[in-house]
Amino acid sequence: MPLPWSAELAGRLDRHMLTFETLRGNPLGDPVERPLNVYVPPGYDDAPDRRYPSVYVLQGYTGHVAMWDNRSPYRLTFPEAADGVFSRGEAPPAIVVFVDAWTLYGGSQFVDSPGTGNYHSYLCNEVVPWVDAHYRTLDAPEHRGVTGKSSGGFGAFITPMLRPDLFGGLASHAGDSLYELSYVNEFAKCTRALREYDGDIWKWWADFQKRPGPTKSNDLSLVMTLGCSACFSANDDGSIELPFDPRSGRLRDDVWQRWLAWDPVRMVDRHADALRSQKAIWIDAGTRDEWFLDLGGQAMVDALADIGVTDVHFELYDAGHGGIDYRYPLSLAYLAQRLSPKP
Amino acid sequence: MPLPWSAELAGRLDRHMLTFETLRGNPLGDPVERPLNVYVPPGYDDAPDRRYPSVYVLQGYTGHVAMWDNRSPYRLTFPEAADGVFSRGEAPPAIVVFVDAWTLYGGSQFVDSPGTGNYHSYLCNEVVPWVDAHYRTLDAPEHRGVTGKSSGGFGAFITPMLRPDLFGGLASHAGDSLYELSYVNEFAKCTRALREYDGDIWKWWADFQKRPGPTKSNDLSLVMTLGCSACFSANDDGSIELPFDPRSGRLRDDVWQRWLAWDPVRMVDRHADALRSQKAIWIDAGTRDEWFLDLGGQAMVDALADIGVTDVHFELYDAGHGGIDYRYPLSLAYLAQRLSPKP
Amino acid sequence: MPLPWSAELAGRLDRHMLTFETLRGNPLGDPVERPLNVYVPPGYDDAPDRRYPSVYVLQGYTGHVAMWDNRSPYRLTFPEAADGVFSRGEAPPAIVVFVDAWTLYGGSQFVDSPGTGNYHSYLCNEVVPWVDAHYRTLDAPEHRGVTGKSSGGFGAFITPMLRPDLFGGLASHAGDSLYELSYVNEFAKCTRALREYDGDIWKWWADFQKRPGPTKSNDLSLVMTLGCSACFSANDDGSIELPFDPRSGRLRDDVWQRWLAWDPVRMVDRHADALRSQKAIWIDAGTRDEWFLDLGGQAMVDALADIGVTDVHFELYDAGHGGIDYRYPLSLAYLAQRLSPKP
Amino acid sequence: MPLPWSAELAGRLDRHMLTFETLRGNPLGDPVERPLNVYVPPGYDDAPDRRYPSVYVLQGYTGHVAMWDNRSPYRLTFPEAADGVFSRGEAPPAIVVFVDAWTLYGGSQFVDSPGTGNYHSYLCNEVVPWVDAHYRTLDAPEHRGVTGKSSGGFGAFITPMLRPDLFGGLASHAGDSLYELSYVNEFAKCTRALREYDGDIWKWWADFQKRPGPTKSNDLSLVMTLGCSACFSANDDGSIELPFDPRSGRLRDDVWQRWLAWDPVRMVDRHADALRSQKAIWIDAGTRDEWFLDLGGQAMVDALADIGVTDVHFELYDAGHGGIDYRYPLSLAYLAQRLSPKP
Repeated sequence: MPLPWSAELAGRLDRHMLTFETLRGNPLGDPVERPLNVYVPPGYDDAPDRRYPSVYVLQGYTGHVAMWDNRSPYRLTFPEAADGVFSRGEAPPAIVVFVDAWTLYGGSQFVDSPGTGNYHSYLCNEVVPWVDAHYRTLDAPEHRGVTGKSSGGFGAFITPMLRPDLFGGLASHAGDSLYELSYVNEFAKCTRALREYDGDIWKWWADFQKRPGPTKSNDLSLVMTLGCSACFSANDDGSIELPFDPRSGRLRDDVWQRWLAWDPVRMVDRHADALRSQKAIWIDAGTRDEWFLDLGGQAMVDALADIGVTDVHFELYDAGHGGIDYRYPLSLAYLAQRLSPKP
Repeated sequence: MPLPWSAELAGRLDRHMLTFETLRGNPLGDPVERPLNVYVPPGYDDAPDRRYPSVYVLQGYTGHVAMWDNRSPYRLTFPEAADGVFSRGEAPPAIVVFVDAWTLYGGSQFVDSPGTGNYHSYLCNEVVPWVDAHYRTLDAPEHRGVTGKSSGGFGAFITPMLRPDLFGGLASHAGDSLYELSYVNEFAKCTRALREYDGDIWKWWADFQKRPGPTKSNDLSLVMTLGCSACFSANDDGSIELPFDPRSGRLRDDVWQRWLAWDPVRMVDRHADALRSQKAIWIDAGTRDEWFLDLGGQAMVDALADIGVTDVHFELYDAGHGGIDYRYPLSLAYLAQRLSPKP
Repeated sequence: MPLPWSAELAGRLDRHMLTFETLRGNPLGDPVERPLNVYVPPGYDDAPDRRYPSVYVLQGYTGHVAMWDNRSPYRLTFPEAADGVFSRGEAPPAIVVFVDAWTLYGGSQFVDSPGTGNYHSYLCNEVVPWVDAHYRTLDAPEHRGVTGKSSGGFGAFITPMLRPDLFGGLASHAGDSLYELSYVNEFAKCTRALREYDGDIWKWWADFQKRPGPTKSNDLSLVMTLGCSACFSANDDGSIELPFDPRSGRLRDDVWQRWLAWDPVRMVDRHADALRSQKAIWIDAGTRDEWFLDLGGQAMVDALADIGVTDVHFELYDAGHGGIDYRYPLSLAYLAQRLSPKP
Repeated sequence: MPLPWSAELAGRLDRHMLTFETLRGNPLGDPVERPLNVYVPPGYDDAPDRRYPSVYVLQGYTGHVAMWDNRSPYRLTFPEAADGVFSRGEAPPAIVVFVDAWTLYGGSQFVDSPGTGNYHSYLCNEVVPWVDAHYRTLDAPEHRGVTGKSSGGFGAFITPMLRPDLFGGLASHAGDSLYELSYVNEFAKCTRALREYDGDIWKWWADFQKRPGPTKSNDLSLVMTLGCSACFSANDDGSIELPFDPRSGRLRDDVWQRWLAWDPVRMVDRHADALRSQKAIWIDAGTRDEWFLDLGGQAMVDALADIGVTDVHFELYDAGHGGIDYRYPLSLAYLAQRLSPKP
């Protein structure tokens, strides 16, 4: 077991703070200057001509890059664990990129939206080129992957669908999907929580912002629901449509359809070629996932099979939604193997 | 508090066993001979010319008429509690009819279906006429009501919509409604439970029938889901379509639309006149209802308001879905008052 | 699967209402006239010289004899299921006696107490002799057993310890035991529930009695805690000592010791000979029992082993505390076999 | 709301790494070199003659000093929030000391034990003197306080009891106490979890150490139970006695008494003078605390009242055990006010 306070890296983690033009003028007034952490594997500096596959890491809702340094008991951080994968030779070396997509509402779902900003473009059109320009990556899509958990797993599902010219591999741990099972229950919880705010999410938001972070049991459900509405069902002027009636929880069909258009399960058909081009697809989740993302994973696997994509690593295990970061190194190794050039 | 073992009635409970032609040839081979319990209030036998309003009582899923005799601690049975309402003069006297709509799958949802049988017709075309023929009811719809909890509350919602010529008042305690919140979560639970049955609900059903009733934690979710599929999405030949993929829980849109067509919230518009004709509407539920039927109740209230029906008794209270039978006498008194002839 | 409404018995269930002198003057003013149901197996009336072993059935907290008629979905009642055991020849025939030990506080724990009444004496000194006098029992202890669930399982544990001259076999399903795990958590729940009653259980009791049975989520925890205090830690004048401080939940050591003196696990040593004399001991519970009575069962098994009693049927299964009545026929068959005369 | 990634401090946080002789030869082989973080308030460097009260901060179980840098959504870290208290002038300035007492078993409970090491002596005899020597503290006990949550709240309860010559104020957020309610339930969970390890906690420990941190739902209950046994019921040779039988969960009375000797509620009487000497006592917890530490807090308040200590800030609020770090700045301000010299 590791010493508790920190671990030495065999590779190197570079911490950059960069200004991203794509985020300028974003509707929430979020910073255009963002951290970007780039990990290079052991040996990188000793092999100045070698090029490496790259894996982009996306975070779950309310995550931001500084949280990759959070320590939890008896665990390595993911950068440390990733370093272990490479230093022990469990996978060919790769560059790992930690991307920040935090917003005032806790996240961006890695999409372009008038409600939050252009985080998909930011990732694809600014972050990736910057990394390719400053690190010795193999810059063809078959050598570039994306991974993440929860909302990050959603980002890992959709980004290669939208940009197969950039991404040729993905890993999704308990990735948001099958929205009828994962989201609708949240709407019910939110509706009950809004009773004390006259069914007005903006009254809650005003109150929430005055408090020292989440202090009520449904605050994070409300944050996520507000934020995802900003991502999936914002109007052109940046205003937000909730997918449900906040008095009763009843689905608003037209808005809900906009959400479903972003359900990875429903996107598979529209992006079949992109998915067929992937060199690596890893999907996993805990069998007790509180948002039923084990079923979301299964639905993805089935939808992929329907378009002929069956070379998928799919795995369920005894866990809920939390505490599954010990899974990330496994999929990282998988991606590194699949995205490395054949010898 | 009552003595534990039983209570004397001031009125009289008649227990009939009758043969109902409407149920003949039902696809599940369920009995055509059914119990029918009819309660007459104190004074009924002493006033041979008096006629009374009548209230039909429907049960929740897996309920059958014999369960009205079940005793729970510190509680009267509902027939006893109803008797108390009348004997204490808390409401004008009424006849109360306890209807049986059990099936092999645990219930009928009080609809006509090739999957279960014609329980709507049975109720409306056989039970009601029989009662009117054998008891001194006031047989106009403005003097006839229907009440129930859970699936029984669903029956109480829909039967007056379909047959306003018969029913002029309703009370629904935690009645099934707003299916996106009440049912979809069940599908997720069922899907997980079916993993050990290869995703085949019939394998589970075969196993379940061999066991001495429910012994696994999701058996009742599966029973209800199978049964409601038989009610809402049977084919003409009696075979059953599940509204979700039993491997992943993904909604099957076409089948799900058939279910939604039976969602009371969605039925309001189509039956606006019937609802406007009601003399009494009582809706209640617990604020912690595990199927979010408090939200279903709110959605009904909102849908009713949209068609101009605002004379509704709506009440939420601190409770879950279970143990709320102490609410039934309250709505019974309400119905008896509203459905009695004006003096 | 059984028809829902009722089942025909191959044997016969006699329903008596008798007056019991032992209960006269009981401190709670509970009835001295009690129901007593006696089941005789198929063939009983045709073999007028044959004598049978007898099994006494005790109920869980808040149970009273009329509840044996309660019906639950897809289940036989226990009298019906017991009848099936005998009619199918799965066990030698036995007489089964359904005993009522309800009190105003919901139960008696089958002990003599100035707080509730002399329910142990009632069972042993009045019920048993009456049954022996009116039915053709084999009246030696090796042919008489006792069974029950939860509090009834507690009664089944302790009654043979106290009266091995009467009882020679026992079955305990999720029987109260290992009080540090089963009861202490209840005290915490009660303490929180009493906050709105100024920490005064009598204020709660007065309020509870005015309500139509349990309507708050912790009412039954409070009933049981009050009632068990009346059973285990009443003073000579019938007043009651709670085993915890109702403001903080802190155990009161002296009162708690009085409870522990009634913990079956702690009683084993003091009643070793009585336990060694048993012809049949059946202990079971669900592995998810909410009161940890699976661990209580294990602790009993271990305590029994310590005094050399290892011929014990012990079984754990996937279940919580509720819905395990399907287990009762299994232990009944076991008792009937062990308590029948050898051929 | 704060920017997500970090906040500037008005004061200064010094991060030391020091060698502590008291920990040398500790039985778990844990590091003798430890981090020690010391925060000085704004103005400290500009007032070279001014001396300040000091507050020592202890962490909950499995916490170590590096975790104070962990970021959670919409929250400041505690060092940042503490800085805010002082920079906004909400309390007189104080020095805040972040102490590390991690062990291989996840914690030390801040006691001296042959099972873990001498963490009480480490805190009192090394950390405090070092801080007093290197920072301009007011070194009388009336100007030194200790605070913490959960196990840290336990440390905050007991350290001033044991060393009133050092500590004159304490704040305990959901501090471990009233062990019959907070710990016994854990033993039941552990016992069930140990079924797959033949009831052998060392088998589990060996397996746990091979896994990448906690991956099973009861791992942390087992860690805490093992660790607290090492703290409270180790033998002189460092071996450990569990307070319960790991097959059944049954309390081992003699070992349990050793635990109870460390229950703050039971320690009050023995340390009455020490507690009477405190200038500040703050106790709080959430009303839904999963370990019933709201009741533990009430029991402490009652025990303190019994020895005449009634000047206590006691507060319950709607929360569970997690996510209550927003409470820490409140008690810090309270301590800083009470422990500052009167003007």
